[in-house]
Amino acid sequence: MKAGAVLLLSGGMDSATCLWWMRRNLEGSIHALSIDYGQRHRVELENAVRLAGRAGVPHKVVGLDLAAIGDSPLTDAALEVPAAREDRQLATVVPFRNLLFASMAAAWAETLGLAEVYLAPVKDDYRSYRDCRRPFYDSLEQTLGLGATHEGDFVVHTPFVHKWKTEVVALGLELGVPYELTHTCYEGKRPACGQCDACAERLAAFAANGVPDPLAYAVQP
Amino acid sequence: MKAGAVLLLSGGMDSATCLWWMRRNLEGSIHALSIDYGQRHRVELENAVRLAGRAGVPHKVVGLDLAAIGDSPLTDAALEVPAAREDRQLATVVPFRNLLFASMAAAWAETLGLAEVYLAPVKDDYRSYRDCRRPFYDSLEQTLGLGATHEGDFVVHTPFVHKWKTEVVALGLELGVPYELTHTCYEGKRPACGQCDACAERLAAFAANGVPDPLAYAVQP
Repeated sequence: MKAGAVLLLSGGMDSATCLWWMRRNLEGSIHALSIDYGQRHRVELENAVRLAGRAGVPHKVVGLDLAAIGDSPLTDAALEVPAAREDRQLATVVPFRNLLFASMAAAWAETLGLAEVYLAPVKDDYRSYRDCRRPFYDSLEQTLGLGATHEGDFVVHTPFVHKWKTEVVALGLELGVPYELTHTCYEGKRPACGQCDACAERLAAFAANGVPDPLAYAVQP
Repeated sequence: MKAGAVLLLSGGMDSATCLWWMRRNLEGSIHALSIDYGQRHRVELENAVRLAGRAGVPHKVVGLDLAAIGDSPLTDAALEVPAAREDRQLATVVPFRNLLFASMAAAWAETLGLAEVYLAPVKDDYRSYRDCRRPFYDSLEQTLGLGATHEGDFVVHTPFVHKWKTEVVALGLELGVPYELTHTCYEGKRPACGQCDACAERLAAFAANGVPDPLAYAVQP
């Protein structure tokens, strides 16, 4: 196997930070993959393109028609995105989204002759999203190793799984991540709505670091 | 969890037989899922529609842009499909195709409130396709159980994994599967080419059962 890995780059803060972290720490090539799954906040794909361009890594956007099987306000324009209250985050779950995304990344990695993928779930995701927890990724590594075309180990890296988003932003500020190029708002709005779950988490992470968020918001936080 | 399952229905013989087998053996609802992954033999999707219609089960076709990450003659019109020689079957592998398909089926199952999926790999696939082997599906069950939105077991059924295609056809003939509605040719041709790997296997399975294949072939077998 060659040295290198595929990173799932959503266009959000966490995966952008992961990309800059990989540029500093990884030997071998980095390939960024974004999934167009019919998300309401599809504008994040434009951010992914800009982030990959700024980082100077090859980037691919692949279509996956999750809206056709979904049941989530993130892919269904007819459903309302819940406002920021922790107990409602469950309503934004897209079934097996990270499994599908990680599998796509593994497929592309195999095509490239690589056997490593990176995802950037953070500790804040732990409560609501079971597929953001490390035991899930440990099991997925096994499954990938058994399903790969050729025998061998597959590695699924989640370097931020034990870090709070606040810590990830602290790391990213140190790494010089261009957060003005990232998108967060679940509503897909520019300026960002400032009120959905995702916006609220982002704003809190910047506030905790004592740094202003470079994004524009419709409702000034 | 409700009783019922999602079946991956390709439009080929094995999954068609599985559908008729489920109609006889399964309690609960059956939902058929087909994946449009840019396969050269896309015509099989029309067969899937007809098979689901004949069986009277709900059916969905979902897009998955494997051609964008592929490297296989099954999704790339510029690559030649190898003729039937066992040692070339590897060339038709699409990385993690079954993982992606099973994950899509699981996602739809979860949306429906179900926790069971069916796939129809057969023993003939064992040598060339590691993701057609039961240890892979055992591991996938673990992964699905850990990644599902709610805690609980997920079951991945592969009722034909230890049956040769010849035995599957024997079962299907007994069950009255309308094989004239199935598609097999990797080239996607109608009449079928009769010369690719897939056609050769199909013809051998009918011959072993002493029954004529109801399909038309360009080159008479």
